[in-house]
Amino acid sequence: MAEEVVLLDFWASMFGMRVRIALAEKGIKYEYREEDLRNKSDLLLQMNPVHKKIPVLIHNGKPICESLIIVQYIDEVWNDKSPLLPSDPYKRAQARFWADFIDKKVYDTGRKLWTTKGEENETAKKELVEIFKTLEEELGEKPYFGGETFGFMDVAFVTFYSWFYAFETFGEFSMEAEHPKIIAWAKRCMQKESVAKTLPDRQKVYEFALDLRKRNLGE
Amino acid sequence: MAEEVVLLDFWASMFGMRVRIALAEKGIKYEYREEDLRNKSDLLLQMNPVHKKIPVLIHNGKPICESLIIVQYIDEVWNDKSPLLPSDPYKRAQARFWADFIDKKVYDTGRKLWTTKGEENETAKKELVEIFKTLEEELGEKPYFGGETFGFMDVAFVTFYSWFYAFETFGEFSMEAEHPKIIAWAKRCMQKESVAKTLPDRQKVYEFALDLRKRNLGE
Repeated sequence: MAEEVVLLDFWASMFGMRVRIALAEKGIKYEYREEDLRNKSDLLLQMNPVHKKIPVLIHNGKPICESLIIVQYIDEVWNDKSPLLPSDPYKRAQARFWADFIDKKVYDTGRKLWTTKGEENETAKKELVEIFKTLEEELGEKPYFGGETFGFMDVAFVTFYSWFYAFETFGEFSMEAEHPKIIAWAKRCMQKESVAKTLPDRQKVYEFALDLRKRNLGE
Repeated sequence: MAEEVVLLDFWASMFGMRVRIALAEKGIKYEYREEDLRNKSDLLLQMNPVHKKIPVLIHNGKPICESLIIVQYIDEVWNDKSPLLPSDPYKRAQARFWADFIDKKVYDTGRKLWTTKGEENETAKKELVEIFKTLEEELGEKPYFGGETFGFMDVAFVTFYSWFYAFETFGEFSMEAEHPKIIAWAKRCMQKESVAKTLPDRQKVYEFALDLRKRNLGE
């Protein structure tokens, strides 16, 4: 069957990047459609009427929403190469747990660095350092979060690497100094073509975050 | 192999109930340990050091956390009966999407009914009605969210049925009048022994919510 795969996405989205990495890992050809998030397309509103958010993967006309659900879908449908989730149920549960941790902790806390001021901002900085410490402990001496090979949790987290410079700059801390193992891991992931070709330039992401900050704080 | 299955849980938790229903569906014998959430056990803190939350399933000494991840784990390990997730990848993605919707929308919005006052409370009430409308549309004329059989999304949502009386009473609306299809679906689920034996008495849950309200609002 001829596969029709379309991705509705936005260049700077760490959620969208996850899907792009998974598609690249599997070698799937697809049509990329950039969305204007302040003027969403009719197609996006029709394909994700519940959340109205990118990314949306449209596979043979049917939409799949929410980045981690899309990555699992891709892994299940194109299961002939580059498995992302391990086959062992316990390891699968662990991979899902840590990917969920990224969604619950890193995104919201990170965002506060450029959307809040004063005490709330200070608290977010401290929390983010703690979150990265937890992740560093989980990584331990393994090359990847999934173990010996690049997997689901690595896909879920590595897209944030393109936002680390924004985190560091707004949070006034050094990722390299504070979390050297995470940086070493991210650089290891960047050796993969699927990751290197997906992640946008950190300076461009920082400027985008700066723009968000201006809008949010009226600075 | 002799299986050792322990569940750390709290009676009124809609998240914990999900795990109890899944274990009952699969016919798994386990040791239930009730936690005092204001004085958590050392075992809970040790088994879920990241979130420090129930439910935690301990299977042969190894912990699995986060209710939807636990239910998927149970479905994958004990895969000889009562499948909860469908085998088709697209239907699996849909089941995960709606279960995730419950977590993102119903819990936080519902909670506001007894933890907030004034305008915030009014907004939460209106939002909750909209959320239930969306769910009613998704259910449509199907007997279960999963289709012809009780599945993952049904497990994820039906545990809230024990909290509907609290929602209705604090929100001053009638679930039966506003969302008859959801009530019919919940009653259908209650015909299953796994559900009926797990869900606590609605009056007891309401009194628990009333107690939470007093603590939160100082009433």
